[in-house]
Amino acid sequence: MLQRKNRLTVNQYVDGILQKDRVVLSRAITLVESSLSEDQLLAEEVLHQVLPYAANSLRIGITGVPGVGKSTFIEAFGQHILQQGHQLAVLTIDPSSQASKGSILGDKTRMSALASDKRAFIRPSPSGNTLGGVAAKTREAMLLCEAAGFDVIFIETVGVGQSETLVKGMVDFFLLLMLAGAGDELQGIKKGIIETADALVITKADGDNLAKAKLARKDYQNALHLFPLNENGWKPKVKVCSAVENSGLVEVWEMMIDFAEKMKANGHFQRNRTQQRLAWMHEHIKWSLENRFYQDPAIVEQLNQVSPLVEKGEVPALTMARKLVQGFLRA
Amino acid sequence: MLQRKNRLTVNQYVDGILQKDRVVLSRAITLVESSLSEDQLLAEEVLHQVLPYAANSLRIGITGVPGVGKSTFIEAFGQHILQQGHQLAVLTIDPSSQASKGSILGDKTRMSALASDKRAFIRPSPSGNTLGGVAAKTREAMLLCEAAGFDVIFIETVGVGQSETLVKGMVDFFLLLMLAGAGDELQGIKKGIIETADALVITKADGDNLAKAKLARKDYQNALHLFPLNENGWKPKVKVCSAVENSGLVEVWEMMIDFAEKMKANGHFQRNRTQQRLAWMHEHIKWSLENRFYQDPAIVEQLNQVSPLVEKGEVPALTMARKLVQGFLRA
Repeated sequence: MLQRKNRLTVNQYVDGILQKDRVVLSRAITLVESSLSEDQLLAEEVLHQVLPYAANSLRIGITGVPGVGKSTFIEAFGQHILQQGHQLAVLTIDPSSQASKGSILGDKTRMSALASDKRAFIRPSPSGNTLGGVAAKTREAMLLCEAAGFDVIFIETVGVGQSETLVKGMVDFFLLLMLAGAGDELQGIKKGIIETADALVITKADGDNLAKAKLARKDYQNALHLFPLNENGWKPKVKVCSAVENSGLVEVWEMMIDFAEKMKANGHFQRNRTQQRLAWMHEHIKWSLENRFYQDPAIVEQLNQVSPLVEKGEVPALTMARKLVQGFLRA
Repeated sequence: MLQRKNRLTVNQYVDGILQKDRVVLSRAITLVESSLSEDQLLAEEVLHQVLPYAANSLRIGITGVPGVGKSTFIEAFGQHILQQGHQLAVLTIDPSSQASKGSILGDKTRMSALASDKRAFIRPSPSGNTLGGVAAKTREAMLLCEAAGFDVIFIETVGVGQSETLVKGMVDFFLLLMLAGAGDELQGIKKGIIETADALVITKADGDNLAKAKLARKDYQNALHLFPLNENGWKPKVKVCSAVENSGLVEVWEMMIDFAEKMKANGHFQRNRTQQRLAWMHEHIKWSLENRFYQDPAIVEQLNQVSPLVEKGEVPALTMARKLVQGFLRA
């Protein structure tokens, strides 16, 4: 009954979003994230109706390990973007929030200036335990924000798991925040992520750390030119910034504007988005198939039995996979 | 009838493999690669029986773009390994061979010394058009080779697509061959692959190219220390070699021996293989589910209709995915 009470009609959701009603926007995102089938059908209808309004934006993925200063960067960088006349939505994907059942309070505390600014909208990730995980509905949440008039979107993620690949697949520009010095702090970053970033930004380039940050920039610039080029013709950049001293943020934003202009001119911007839309459908197809499979009680029980045998090499992986899938599709 | 005639009994396959009968080994691999369900059941039984004999080996993935000199490297490096008293199986995964329906002749021509040596066994990839692609049965082919006494396995792949990730998931050591100079030749390499390699080997380090190769080694060494460390504690190495002058190959092999000893000592070698076995079952599960879905005639027809709408952003990806999967699982 509580669910019903909180639910609006399709028109109420759509009108509210298009009128930039933040409460309705929040509720619509909650609806999209819901796993109840009634909610899903309603959410799909809302999405369908707002889709035409959800394209005029710059979508920026921001990742980096804990401790790199993501919140501080987003808080300062976000304010700079607001000053340029934009409206900013920040969607955060934080696998650790699954345990704490969401981190709304945390997000709003750690980005207090943005949280209190009406031109900005901050939304933590849904806590999800299904395949595709916490990011499974982030793209849909982003579309709702765009329909509500937010023309710059940050999708923030911790660069340690599968979520960055998903984020990369839903943004125009992918930014990796790094610390100067290449020691233990790098340990947690997912392999391969440095090569896929459109830019590295070295944070905390202030005080005693400035010289070190500039040296790191040089090192990474040298390293990046050893990597394969992007097919869009963009050469990844390395920047330094300090959120505390408010330095470097202008340059980072100018770089993104430059990127968007170049990619729109060479056609890659739209081509990339077209590909992303189709790829997202196929991602959802895979998640749905796998969720249905792995949540099937009979499959769960069989997997518990056979997994140890497969691990030990006592039965072929191939055989077990075939039997499980055949049994599932026959059922 | 031709299929039946070529098929042996389970015992004939198993005995032949364990007796190192190369003709039977070849036939068994063909059986494993077959998509006929009778062949599959037979293949699984053969695999099951030879599994206990299929673990004592060093599995090495070798990748690099066309033109890097993979065949020349494998020919020279393989002979060095044979001289150390090992038996070598080379499994090549070449997506381009799908068009030409296999490249047995090609492989044997381009590695003529290995092809004529009884201590070596060369087998091109199956040409497959299902999900998981050409590499879907390579792991099983590898197990058969190991049961036949081949204690060093090369899995060779072109570093341009999805196959390297799969190869990385079935080997102990992942080697990336590179050319000196970081220009256009890098264009084709899949992003992220440099960071996942256990070693880079710069080929063609001879004559006028030697100085350039040594400079490239230094550059890559500098770049690699900017990357996250491997969780197994191994620091990726950069080597130079010349297959023509036969230089550097001893060092590459010693590095692999060193790697295997260290990983066996710290427990990572076995832990990695245990994880790989289970991961392979889940890969097969995903491929099976997706193959069944994407090969369903009704799904094919519906995808043709809805894909353009999703690409244009006219209907939500989420909605189409749900409808397609629901229809498929209900059917």
